[in-house]
Amino acid sequence: MIIILASSASDAHIQHVCDRLAQRGYEANVSRGVERTLIGAVGKLSDEDKSQLADQLQSLEYVERVVPISRPYKLVSREGHDQTTIPLGDHILGSEAIILMAGPCSVESESQIVEAARAVKAAGAHVLRGGAFKPRTSPYDFQGHGLDGLKMLRTASLETGLPIITEVLDVRDVEAVCAHAQMLQIGTRNMANFQLLREVGQTHIPVMLKRGWASTIDEWLKAAEYLLAGGNHYVTLCERGIRTFEPSFRNTLDLAAVPAVKKLTHLPVVVDPSQGTGRWDMVEPMSLAAIAAGADGLLIEVHPDPETAWSDGAQSLSPSRFARFVERARPVAVAVGRTLT
Amino acid sequence: MIIILASSASDAHIQHVCDRLAQRGYEANVSRGVERTLIGAVGKLSDEDKSQLADQLQSLEYVERVVPISRPYKLVSREGHDQTTIPLGDHILGSEAIILMAGPCSVESESQIVEAARAVKAAGAHVLRGGAFKPRTSPYDFQGHGLDGLKMLRTASLETGLPIITEVLDVRDVEAVCAHAQMLQIGTRNMANFQLLREVGQTHIPVMLKRGWASTIDEWLKAAEYLLAGGNHYVTLCERGIRTFEPSFRNTLDLAAVPAVKKLTHLPVVVDPSQGTGRWDMVEPMSLAAIAAGADGLLIEVHPDPETAWSDGAQSLSPSRFARFVERARPVAVAVGRTLT
Amino acid sequence: MIIILASSASDAHIQHVCDRLAQRGYEANVSRGVERTLIGAVGKLSDEDKSQLADQLQSLEYVERVVPISRPYKLVSREGHDQTTIPLGDHILGSEAIILMAGPCSVESESQIVEAARAVKAAGAHVLRGGAFKPRTSPYDFQGHGLDGLKMLRTASLETGLPIITEVLDVRDVEAVCAHAQMLQIGTRNMANFQLLREVGQTHIPVMLKRGWASTIDEWLKAAEYLLAGGNHYVTLCERGIRTFEPSFRNTLDLAAVPAVKKLTHLPVVVDPSQGTGRWDMVEPMSLAAIAAGADGLLIEVHPDPETAWSDGAQSLSPSRFARFVERARPVAVAVGRTLT
Amino acid sequence: MIIILASSASDAHIQHVCDRLAQRGYEANVSRGVERTLIGAVGKLSDEDKSQLADQLQSLEYVERVVPISRPYKLVSREGHDQTTIPLGDHILGSEAIILMAGPCSVESESQIVEAARAVKAAGAHVLRGGAFKPRTSPYDFQGHGLDGLKMLRTASLETGLPIITEVLDVRDVEAVCAHAQMLQIGTRNMANFQLLREVGQTHIPVMLKRGWASTIDEWLKAAEYLLAGGNHYVTLCERGIRTFEPSFRNTLDLAAVPAVKKLTHLPVVVDPSQGTGRWDMVEPMSLAAIAAGADGLLIEVHPDPETAWSDGAQSLSPSRFARFVERARPVAVAVGRTLT
Repeated sequence: MIIILASSASDAHIQHVCDRLAQRGYEANVSRGVERTLIGAVGKLSDEDKSQLADQLQSLEYVERVVPISRPYKLVSREGHDQTTIPLGDHILGSEAIILMAGPCSVESESQIVEAARAVKAAGAHVLRGGAFKPRTSPYDFQGHGLDGLKMLRTASLETGLPIITEVLDVRDVEAVCAHAQMLQIGTRNMANFQLLREVGQTHIPVMLKRGWASTIDEWLKAAEYLLAGGNHYVTLCERGIRTFEPSFRNTLDLAAVPAVKKLTHLPVVVDPSQGTGRWDMVEPMSLAAIAAGADGLLIEVHPDPETAWSDGAQSLSPSRFARFVERARPVAVAVGRTLT
Repeated sequence: MIIILASSASDAHIQHVCDRLAQRGYEANVSRGVERTLIGAVGKLSDEDKSQLADQLQSLEYVERVVPISRPYKLVSREGHDQTTIPLGDHILGSEAIILMAGPCSVESESQIVEAARAVKAAGAHVLRGGAFKPRTSPYDFQGHGLDGLKMLRTASLETGLPIITEVLDVRDVEAVCAHAQMLQIGTRNMANFQLLREVGQTHIPVMLKRGWASTIDEWLKAAEYLLAGGNHYVTLCERGIRTFEPSFRNTLDLAAVPAVKKLTHLPVVVDPSQGTGRWDMVEPMSLAAIAAGADGLLIEVHPDPETAWSDGAQSLSPSRFARFVERARPVAVAVGRTLT
Repeated sequence: MIIILASSASDAHIQHVCDRLAQRGYEANVSRGVERTLIGAVGKLSDEDKSQLADQLQSLEYVERVVPISRPYKLVSREGHDQTTIPLGDHILGSEAIILMAGPCSVESESQIVEAARAVKAAGAHVLRGGAFKPRTSPYDFQGHGLDGLKMLRTASLETGLPIITEVLDVRDVEAVCAHAQMLQIGTRNMANFQLLREVGQTHIPVMLKRGWASTIDEWLKAAEYLLAGGNHYVTLCERGIRTFEPSFRNTLDLAAVPAVKKLTHLPVVVDPSQGTGRWDMVEPMSLAAIAAGADGLLIEVHPDPETAWSDGAQSLSPSRFARFVERARPVAVAVGRTLT
Repeated sequence: MIIILASSASDAHIQHVCDRLAQRGYEANVSRGVERTLIGAVGKLSDEDKSQLADQLQSLEYVERVVPISRPYKLVSREGHDQTTIPLGDHILGSEAIILMAGPCSVESESQIVEAARAVKAAGAHVLRGGAFKPRTSPYDFQGHGLDGLKMLRTASLETGLPIITEVLDVRDVEAVCAHAQMLQIGTRNMANFQLLREVGQTHIPVMLKRGWASTIDEWLKAAEYLLAGGNHYVTLCERGIRTFEPSFRNTLDLAAVPAVKKLTHLPVVVDPSQGTGRWDMVEPMSLAAIAAGADGLLIEVHPDPETAWSDGAQSLSPSRFARFVERARPVAVAVGRTLT
């Protein structure tokens, strides 16, 4: 941590900061420049102390700015850890293989989800997605079939052999979702729902943590740290678009986050082009781009009949469009040294 | 709802859309323009059907865009409802009186919160704020004293007579927080935590709903609709800044949201300049501006000693600065036809 | 400038950075922390060297980040300078007095601008605004009357005694605009048009520099530095809203920028609530808020008949609404220690 | 255009809007819904009239919203036009071939630009980029060699046979730049510099229009319309990142803009991953992603020695890294049905 003092700071002010640092176990390294005095805080403390202390020092009128130095996530950091790999059915997320997760936004009925599962499997998907608990902006929208939806998902899984990924919204549902799914999803609205992160962190089921739609990469990795700190090491990240001023898309898919995050952490990274653009006609080009950018997997909304979908019809692929996409994706995966089987 | 067709749409396409509308109980009003054909859907349906249908139609290749017309919140809408007023101790939020809610970010100890309560009361605050459950970006930061914090808050309330506002984070804590506080706060990270909204909607305790840091006004009002739809009518909104590209502030305080929201809804609107800027030196000018813009109340972080605050030191006022602010705020309130006593 | 090295940096890497600093006349202050090594660059150099050097060092694989310390604007900085005051007719921008600049978006005809000038003067405006050169998003929109518009503005000025502020768009028009106006306006699209800034910096006519709609405060002040570096010291800043995800407004008016900028610089700050919100019904509350936040003046679009305005009808006040606003603004100005006469 | 009236609108209000539409040559199509009345304006008018009229109607208190229908660019629209192709040396931008434009941010000296040109040609680039006129945020930064820089570029072009792309900043320099370069670049800060667009529109030199860093796709295409409306049909677009809240990158590269723009327009689309991320280590993955997303070309900063670059060192590739990237890009281009030779 470096403390930058205002040009008006006096010697007494400098001393006061040094004293505060000493009280908290830091050594102070004072550097008087031509225009400003800087104080470096040297020493190792827990992360809690650092952010609290930074905030306190910033309350002083003669402190212009406090610059944090170390990144506040230890467990998700690439430094000192091997690449995380997550087995999902016969495939491994985080390996050379690109993992395709596909299925409808909402589970609408047993026949719908079974039909969807068969279609995405036939086209080459490795994991079935489908929502039983749905976070909906309006209280008047369909909120998902809940526990019944989980059972329908399990039926579809048994029929096809595809492992299931499904969202968990409520701390009270974690146990039930773990009993039915092979992978939990924490959605964009819950990335900073720390109670839910703590509960899921105590399970041993693989979990996909979506980026908050207005969360920085730094905040996203700190949220993942909650999961790992709880003991759950099967964590994958999912970039699903951020909110910007551009109205052409539901979100702006931040594909640069993929290589950036992979430099910082050992966790796999999945991309969701369906939420990430909100337009079915953008799913194929952005999926190909995601693979080229280094994504380990894709989460794609596929509905047997988008025109009758109970939710997210506008961003869902039909099974035939999904199948066509998979064909086009294979050579791209190979071109960047990955496999897609 | 208006469906704008692509210029390539054929007569068969137009008929298909009309048929879909008819199936769902709408009358279709076709308007063939020089460049585009528009289809207006006339008829009253529940909001659920509308958004689902819009999404489905948008999945058709020859539909360029679907434009929603009616606003999807009935209960929070100003149309057909009187201004909401919320009694808090001896004062009424949503009346001519400006309500000041002040106190520390976190409850640190009984003595700290009692000292803070006395100081803010002496300076003119009407409600004591203080966090017992704290949502923290890093798992290694102080997470609040929880239930013990609630008890300390109650002690401070009994000592000073100030009603309490405090955040509830977890559906499992709603009952406990209701037992200790006079007003619940739903924080920015939980604005779209619909499970929590539903639980709090079933209580009869006044609740303040903060705007999500990247939520539109429309989404914010739909979130408030969850609370009212549950039966809780004592709801106030709180503008607390949105996330933008500008690094000078923790958030960009969107003061125009105050008059804009007051035109749309009958709910009171509070402004939080502490979170809204992240800088103690911005709290006074932005609080004065909030009053001038029409805010019904202010939520201000005040700590007995910001330099030792366990959280948010950088944006907390000292008691003397808060007292000075209140003196300066009074004539501004009067100048815009409000009172501050 | 502080150079933060990656944890992988070797002693040779540290030495290399120190050597580079030495070559450029800096003293290097190395601080080896537990996790990272920091190198502080001490010494005074021109600003050019600093930003170039920072960029160069950041190209090294073992440099994690370079943190700039000093603010790169000398002439606009409050440090070492008195508050700038700008005489405009009988009034002084940057004094205790709030300056009202009002008039239509575009000059449409001599009779329109004369009528507008009389109306805004009668209501209390101090300066007449009106656009002769108009930057329009579409090539098919009205682009302004140009030189003829300037002449119409001068007629309106002679009729009413109001000084004129009008936008200059093109380096080739600077001389003509200077010959007709008392104050130049550099619009939001041209904040980073450095050629135009340089030309205007060489005049001695007061100039208002609008913030770019996606420019940080830091970039805005650097743009102002271009003007002062050219020799023009009569510079005022104008906050006019920034672009965010919120669709309710044309822009999000960043009122916190007003006190923030006034802390950093000696230049006056004007607020444009018309562009800043894009809605006539937001102009009054946001203008009152701007005064409360510390603005030195307001730039407000007023049209004799907004329903027939050639541009910006949706955000223009009618003369009667403007007059009513001025009456309401007076007590707010007084409440914050200003005058509005 | 559709006019949505407030629920409070009376019959007289409806009639007033219909009369206004009739005056302007529109037929009014009134649709009285359960909650709102809509008025569709049918008829063909110039685009200018439409946007002006929309703005005027929005000034009426009983008009809730005006929804535009047709897209306000005729010449850049894909409808009715063939794909634009632009010959550059031996290659054609807008064809199956991916065009690589590479070189340093600034022309620093003749030897530097000649060395850069040879290096990028050897690695496979088709066009040499290099800045003679530089827009710099601070007046104290290096502003480019100007006319001398153009001459150095020409020398490098003659030495290597590579055509030149270079930025033009000032209307007064258009002629000189046209005399030296094979392609003009209009930078992100000048996307909405309509004077410059008009001047460049009157030349017949190919031009690359970068997207404004906070411009919507719609605004970008309207800016391109200025160029085509002037008579210059050799226009390519360049996505170079937009400004968001994410601090990890200088900009957020909006790759979804590539397929979205290609659906709307017949113009080629180039991607600039150097500006688009601001980090040399992101250039390769984002370039591969851009090709996969459908880009027609790439604009990449390559400097003989990034550590000594006069500008943009942090985002420049060394020649060896650029050469390695080209090798990796070839199979990706082939995988999506393009060529890279």
